[in-house]
Amino acid sequence: MGGGAAGASAAQFARKENRSAAIHIFEASTHPEYSRCGLPYALSGEIPSFESLIEYSEEWFQRNKINLHLSTKVVDINASQKTLAFEGAEGDEKAGYDSLIFTTGASPSIPKIESVSAGDRLRKGVFLFRGMDDAKSLKEWCESRARKVLIVGAGLVGLECAEALHKLGHQITVVEYLESVLPMMIDPDMADPLLSEMIKAGIEIKTFAAVESVFGGKDVEGARIRNRNDDHSEELSCDTVILTTGQRPLTSLALAAGCALGRHGHIKVDDRCETNVPGIFAAGDCSEYKDMITKREMPVGMGSLAVKMGEIAGRNAVGGDVRLLAGFLNSRVTKLFGIEIAAVGPLSTELSAAEIKYIQSRVKGSTLPAYYPGGKDLLMKLTASREDVRLLSCQIMGKEGCGHRANVIGALISAGRSAQDLAMLETTYAPPVAPCVDVITTAAQAILIKSRRAGPSG
Amino acid sequence: MGGGAAGASAAQFARKENRSAAIHIFEASTHPEYSRCGLPYALSGEIPSFESLIEYSEEWFQRNKINLHLSTKVVDINASQKTLAFEGAEGDEKAGYDSLIFTTGASPSIPKIESVSAGDRLRKGVFLFRGMDDAKSLKEWCESRARKVLIVGAGLVGLECAEALHKLGHQITVVEYLESVLPMMIDPDMADPLLSEMIKAGIEIKTFAAVESVFGGKDVEGARIRNRNDDHSEELSCDTVILTTGQRPLTSLALAAGCALGRHGHIKVDDRCETNVPGIFAAGDCSEYKDMITKREMPVGMGSLAVKMGEIAGRNAVGGDVRLLAGFLNSRVTKLFGIEIAAVGPLSTELSAAEIKYIQSRVKGSTLPAYYPGGKDLLMKLTASREDVRLLSCQIMGKEGCGHRANVIGALISAGRSAQDLAMLETTYAPPVAPCVDVITTAAQAILIKSRRAGPSG
Repeated sequence: MGGGAAGASAAQFARKENRSAAIHIFEASTHPEYSRCGLPYALSGEIPSFESLIEYSEEWFQRNKINLHLSTKVVDINASQKTLAFEGAEGDEKAGYDSLIFTTGASPSIPKIESVSAGDRLRKGVFLFRGMDDAKSLKEWCESRARKVLIVGAGLVGLECAEALHKLGHQITVVEYLESVLPMMIDPDMADPLLSEMIKAGIEIKTFAAVESVFGGKDVEGARIRNRNDDHSEELSCDTVILTTGQRPLTSLALAAGCALGRHGHIKVDDRCETNVPGIFAAGDCSEYKDMITKREMPVGMGSLAVKMGEIAGRNAVGGDVRLLAGFLNSRVTKLFGIEIAAVGPLSTELSAAEIKYIQSRVKGSTLPAYYPGGKDLLMKLTASREDVRLLSCQIMGKEGCGHRANVIGALISAGRSAQDLAMLETTYAPPVAPCVDVITTAAQAILIKSRRAGPSG
Repeated sequence: MGGGAAGASAAQFARKENRSAAIHIFEASTHPEYSRCGLPYALSGEIPSFESLIEYSEEWFQRNKINLHLSTKVVDINASQKTLAFEGAEGDEKAGYDSLIFTTGASPSIPKIESVSAGDRLRKGVFLFRGMDDAKSLKEWCESRARKVLIVGAGLVGLECAEALHKLGHQITVVEYLESVLPMMIDPDMADPLLSEMIKAGIEIKTFAAVESVFGGKDVEGARIRNRNDDHSEELSCDTVILTTGQRPLTSLALAAGCALGRHGHIKVDDRCETNVPGIFAAGDCSEYKDMITKREMPVGMGSLAVKMGEIAGRNAVGGDVRLLAGFLNSRVTKLFGIEIAAVGPLSTELSAAEIKYIQSRVKGSTLPAYYPGGKDLLMKLTASREDVRLLSCQIMGKEGCGHRANVIGALISAGRSAQDLAMLETTYAPPVAPCVDVITTAAQAILIKSRRAGPSG
């Protein structure tokens, strides 16, 4: 159920695994699978049309003998009889199944802000930014005239939205409840290079602040924002509000089918992407799986994980036996205002919450050797176990070359390797491509120096 | 002995390891350490001056209390008495030592070509390209007028030289004895994208061909080139010949000191970079160490390895105990004519020679998602053990993003991981940075499909 990234990936790999299985996808919206991650770039116009985000067309599903039911909603599941009921364009029906995959995704959460809604709908001028319809409505709204936009939430979606609308010439203020931008992606002390680029670009940013209310007549005229440090409130004039404060998994059908939820209220799965109910699988934003380092469940919130889980769930649902690695690295990257920001592994606060003792190095480097023109600064933070310098996480930012460097660290983390192994790892070197001693090597050497100073028990 | 990349790195890390040790470097040339890898870019003018290639200045050595003896040659070693004799600017002297590191490097090999020499020197118009003096002479020669240049050897140095001189407007022919360009770096079937760019740029390339003779009066006027396929010879008009056919390690002093040479005639070292003579170490181009995959000795020929070995030798020579990984990956990259070419692990012929059975995938990908503008094609070849799909090597090329991708594979190879682990490895994804399913993932999936078809015993 659900034809997003996880659902389409599940169907694709189920078909690869099993040529004869009958495969059905039930999708409530009118869209076949498209890249949600691409929406900000279609909003800005960098990608010419929303339609070019469609990765699996209706024709593709037909060719692969996958029955895609658009505008169709599953309304009931009977897990003991293995049947489900659905309503849709083709009428109301009932069907049996051998296995079931929940790829129901999530819906955007709506923060508690006074007057943000009118009845059970958001008021005019207030937008969400999750699906293609949200993005299209927002684009249409913003095309009519220059807007003063308030974005609530400085996570990935909020900032990607901010950049897109800034490119289109709108005036942007971003308000973040927590102390720094991208709070689920990087530690606060790594946000500076991004913040400085955003400020240079003319974006107004308020962190550790809460949007208390939206005001105005028929149209939004402004919002009241409270500084959480000093409790001082101020009014900000704006005509558009975009809510990007996270999402809630869609789990009601899974609950009805007897599936257990995890620590974060998402459907809990094992390394086969199977729920506690045999034959029922889940993948993508509606699910949670353990973190590789903390071993605690973490909610899935990225397209890349949804696709990987879809593959595993799809294959296993039709008789395969494949498994995820022993936890997620949460490998993540974005590019905002010319700064590439990448990370793998838990945030420092997550490590502390899991009572993992760590040491960290924070080093600067360059994408190219000092003597070669055009090198770009890199800032990297590497974290290793205090006990045995096993690699735990890294965060890296600069104008380019960050995501790939994070992947190298991710590969070593996934293999349980240490800062010593990283320090000794060969990295490719050529003056126009990368320096002889890469920043990832320097970061590992710095960890080893710290570790020697601290002694093995810290 | 030898103040190149390995020597300077050894001195630097010996000082880090031991604050009181007396450290001496004997360097026969007049130059403190500089980046040899940067020479082609100083030749082309991309790097403004040869002097900017100097990474460790004389002042740096002074600050770190390292005695750098330039223009000084060690002429004899008595390993039983632990003394050495040297001649140089400061006069002839004898000195004792506790440990010794050979970082003597290599000299360019001179291929057997009729009339390439005049007496014991190369004739006028014929050049080598190893050190800064070679590069300076060549630059001066080429600055006086447009040249018709014949480059003998299409390895890394030959092609980097070809590109530099092409940028300066000279007419270039490259002749390679083996069947393809970059024969020590990539398999012949991976050379096509590079070849096509070189031909577009107007470089003439003759592979599987031998330069038999150079002819002319006082000046070089041309060369006779034999096609090794059909034995047909032809004359090529040229006024400049550059010999880039590899190098021979400088080992005579090491032999005198009782050091054993390895399979390739370089000084053989263990994972501590120590030779068979206790207290005598070697690092860089004069040495050989085992390949991680084939377990056979391979000659060291890259600056990045020289620096890593220098670190290990330097630390261990003053009382440290650090080790290289269990073999070299030979991680390598270059950028030629706009094409980045990267590889880790042995060539296919080297795997076969070591009787390692393998399966390979060859896949195309892109640096960005299909829907995002500006993606560049990538071509990747991945090799895994036929027996257990353990990763063995990869080669990848495209306009950008190849070296880093090779490093991810290198990290997994160094950890003994399989194509299954690579297929399941998370990679960072964001539309402006990298696709959701990266080419490294696709290559791993293709290996797994091949492996399933072939069955476990191939």
